Amino acid sequence: MRAGNLQLDSQGRLKHFLGIEGLSRELLAEILDNAERFAPVGDRAVKKVPLLRGKTVANLFFEPSTRTRTTFDLAAKRLSADVLNLNIEASSAKKGESLTDTLRNLEAMQCDMFVVRHQTSGAAEFIARQVAPHISVINGGDGRHEHPTQAMLDVFTIRRLKQRFTHLKVAIVGDVAHSRVARSEIHALRILGVPDIRVVGPKTLIPPRIEDMGVSVHHTLEEGIAGADVVIMLRLQQERMQSALLPSAHEYFREYGLTAARLKRAAKDAIVMHPGPINRGVEIDSAVADGVQSVILQQVTYGIAVRMAVMSMVMATQSLTFGNGQGSTDVD
Amino acid sequence: MRAGNLQLDSQGRLKHFLGIEGLSRELLAEILDNAERFAPVGDRAVKKVPLLRGKTVANLFFEPSTRTRTTFDLAAKRLSADVLNLNIEASSAKKGESLTDTLRNLEAMQCDMFVVRHQTSGAAEFIARQVAPHISVINGGDGRHEHPTQAMLDVFTIRRLKQRFTHLKVAIVGDVAHSRVARSEIHALRILGVPDIRVVGPKTLIPPRIEDMGVSVHHTLEEGIAGADVVIMLRLQQERMQSALLPSAHEYFREYGLTAARLKRAAKDAIVMHPGPINRGVEIDSAVADGVQSVILQQVTYGIAVRMAVMSMVMATQSLTFGNGQGSTDVD
Amino acid sequence: MRAGNLQLDSQGRLKHFLGIEGLSRELLAEILDNAERFAPVGDRAVKKVPLLRGKTVANLFFEPSTRTRTTFDLAAKRLSADVLNLNIEASSAKKGESLTDTLRNLEAMQCDMFVVRHQTSGAAEFIARQVAPHISVINGGDGRHEHPTQAMLDVFTIRRLKQRFTHLKVAIVGDVAHSRVARSEIHALRILGVPDIRVVGPKTLIPPRIEDMGVSVHHTLEEGIAGADVVIMLRLQQERMQSALLPSAHEYFREYGLTAARLKRAAKDAIVMHPGPINRGVEIDSAVADGVQSVILQQVTYGIAVRMAVMSMVMATQSLTFGNGQGSTDVD
Repeated sequence: MRAGNLQLDSQGRLKHFLGIEGLSRELLAEILDNAERFAPVGDRAVKKVPLLRGKTVANLFFEPSTRTRTTFDLAAKRLSADVLNLNIEASSAKKGESLTDTLRNLEAMQCDMFVVRHQTSGAAEFIARQVAPHISVINGGDGRHEHPTQAMLDVFTIRRLKQRFTHLKVAIVGDVAHSRVARSEIHALRILGVPDIRVVGPKTLIPPRIEDMGVSVHHTLEEGIAGADVVIMLRLQQERMQSALLPSAHEYFREYGLTAARLKRAAKDAIVMHPGPINRGVEIDSAVADGVQSVILQQVTYGIAVRMAVMSMVMATQSLTFGNGQGSTDVD
Repeated sequence: MRAGNLQLDSQGRLKHFLGIEGLSRELLAEILDNAERFAPVGDRAVKKVPLLRGKTVANLFFEPSTRTRTTFDLAAKRLSADVLNLNIEASSAKKGESLTDTLRNLEAMQCDMFVVRHQTSGAAEFIARQVAPHISVINGGDGRHEHPTQAMLDVFTIRRLKQRFTHLKVAIVGDVAHSRVARSEIHALRILGVPDIRVVGPKTLIPPRIEDMGVSVHHTLEEGIAGADVVIMLRLQQERMQSALLPSAHEYFREYGLTAARLKRAAKDAIVMHPGPINRGVEIDSAVADGVQSVILQQVTYGIAVRMAVMSMVMATQSLTFGNGQGSTDVD
Repeated sequence: MRAGNLQLDSQGRLKHFLGIEGLSRELLAEILDNAERFAPVGDRAVKKVPLLRGKTVANLFFEPSTRTRTTFDLAAKRLSADVLNLNIEASSAKKGESLTDTLRNLEAMQCDMFVVRHQTSGAAEFIARQVAPHISVINGGDGRHEHPTQAMLDVFTIRRLKQRFTHLKVAIVGDVAHSRVARSEIHALRILGVPDIRVVGPKTLIPPRIEDMGVSVHHTLEEGIAGADVVIMLRLQQERMQSALLPSAHEYFREYGLTAARLKRAAKDAIVMHPGPINRGVEIDSAVADGVQSVILQQVTYGIAVRMAVMSMVMATQSLTFGNGQGSTDVD
């Protein structure tokens, strides 16, 4: 079974959100349309809707994260859910409990949703295959595999600012080889019909046969972003710089750092994106990160709307299947 | 004054929940009956009741815990309380504040309930004797003394599956000597009228004169669980295995590990329980832990209902004594 | 621009709360009057008002704190806000993100308020100057500069117990040189019209030219508290005792520790205050800390009311400027 199937219930609705690969254009559009409905909530005086009231969301972060964990936390709270933030490594591992037993216990506590970040590719899918039918799993990033909510907030940002996908040139720059963000973005952009997707980086950071994913490969930044409507800069992990894959941060910036001068090669109205946290002066110059073409902070804002959309969609399948739809608040 | 008295207000209602010892059969039955009312809340689309809205519950965990802390946290949230999770050792101890001063401060912050886990026997009672009259204390496990909510969820599970107590044979297997769970269970089972309670384990892990508690002692698993309706396996603490009290985990399993073959000695419809987290292959075989007779995960689920019951009961005494019962939500 | 101006919006209302210095007597009185309205909330059966429902409060603690963080957390929850508790050093610093980028991201997540504690004087003001116009900043203590909510809860306590300020003698005793609490208190007491403010301590712990703040300096406790209506004991930081500034804790107590005998020098109905956590037997004797003249725990209780007042005041300016005042709870 492909992840694309595991994610859908028998009526084709989103039950888990594990990866972009294999999803239909219609489903991605549905997520984006729902996110449009949630985006205004963040601008209201009362940033709260009661859709997930009385649901329990467990954030299972096996890998440290501030931005992703915090935005999932806020998305859940703004949907009125109860949130458990569990640092799994610190807690159950101490007593030698297996991951499976930890999950079984959280199920028994009647959690409704697991948001999972894990250093191992496939961890979210592994968990989704194991959990009880009343649980939905959302992938908050698994190894080098996928980070689907990040990709959806990226394409949401692109759609907001560029309206359509079918005429766009999008460049993804940096450590593509180790990036789950890049993988999910490429899938999303292809499914949504972006005709020109480019990956840009040194040979050591571009995976072999990436062309099979429908992208072109470029080894100079100037060539890679020429005429691009969207330039997505990836974060350079510190550990790459300490390995043999890269000479130094300084050297990397000289070759692939996005400066205002280089950005002129892109389309005049190109937007610059980055999943954060940014390394100023490594993959991006501060003048660009803080410049008028940067939409990096809008990505963060839209990330909450996109996560609210995904969370409410997977819960909608649950309540139709398992819930009684009543929501009485009295114990008797 | 006995703990049994300290726990009750002048009208005999539960004000603190510190230990099972000394409580009446009627009171335990009342907790079980209340838990029955809360059990369906976890199956609803909206797992929330407003009983403790505007109450402040402080989880004071001096000892690490995932399962107990999380289920108390969820129980409080599903009762709509505000929850403070305090890791006491990490916080006040740094500035050299005494436990008493920490408690006085939490009282002054108008907390309504302290859930206390502490490595010292008697800690919860010590705190209950000190706190202001408007605070209720719930023991989440104190040293080797008691873990009363665990015992109540165990007997709740037994009642759900076996209906009556007065004909049962119950075996408690493992490290009885160091187990607050076993102590609380023995008290609860006796009070509820279980006629045949057995403790099973090597001599080094059975406390002397345990027969005075009304149980029989068995040193072989086969003999101990023969014909039993309920088999409760205790967790073997890692530190025991490193001490001189036990030869090795492997050796322990060979003598006292619950396997499918051995379980056949028990009654045909015997249920298998464990407070978790389980050590697979040490005190219990995976085939049994995950088998049809295991009710280990049901215990976790019922634990939330039992904790909601206890929390609402101790708060009911408070609101009659101190609250105004109004619950206006406006500041004026 | 002075901090006093930065704190106010164009109509003179409190937008940030960074320090007491430069604020008007009217504004302090307004805070105190609002705190009077919130004080009864803590005594209710339902300790909750909906004023900040759907607002997001981020507690940014760069320095450890239990009391201040917990009371801000409770104040926000009792105002029905959603609270993010961020330990900034542990989180973003790991990935090498700058403070500014962390703040920009929290802004993009549509946080409404930052409560900031930082070891550097001026940190809260630095942040207030940087944040987007829709964010309010509250100083939870910055280096040796100010701790304005502590000062306000102190003067709230004094007003509750002494009614008027204009006839009072107030002594502040201890490590004035390193105390942001003392600085904020002196400003608040002067603005509110206290005619006789004294600082008391050894020469090494009294800053030079402190008289310029309108206080008198005393180097013996007996002289300093003679006839005082209010005696405020400061906490002696452990690190002072390890430095050359002080001989020893024992020695300090002999000279400046508040004992019952010494307290007799103060007015007969003098009250004793302390910001906590107290060092029993160092700056204060237990008999005094727990005695009838001590109002130390009342300070903690009032601290929640004062923080609720300040939080609701700064949010009131926001909602008039930016909110739609509607608070619909549906997504459409």
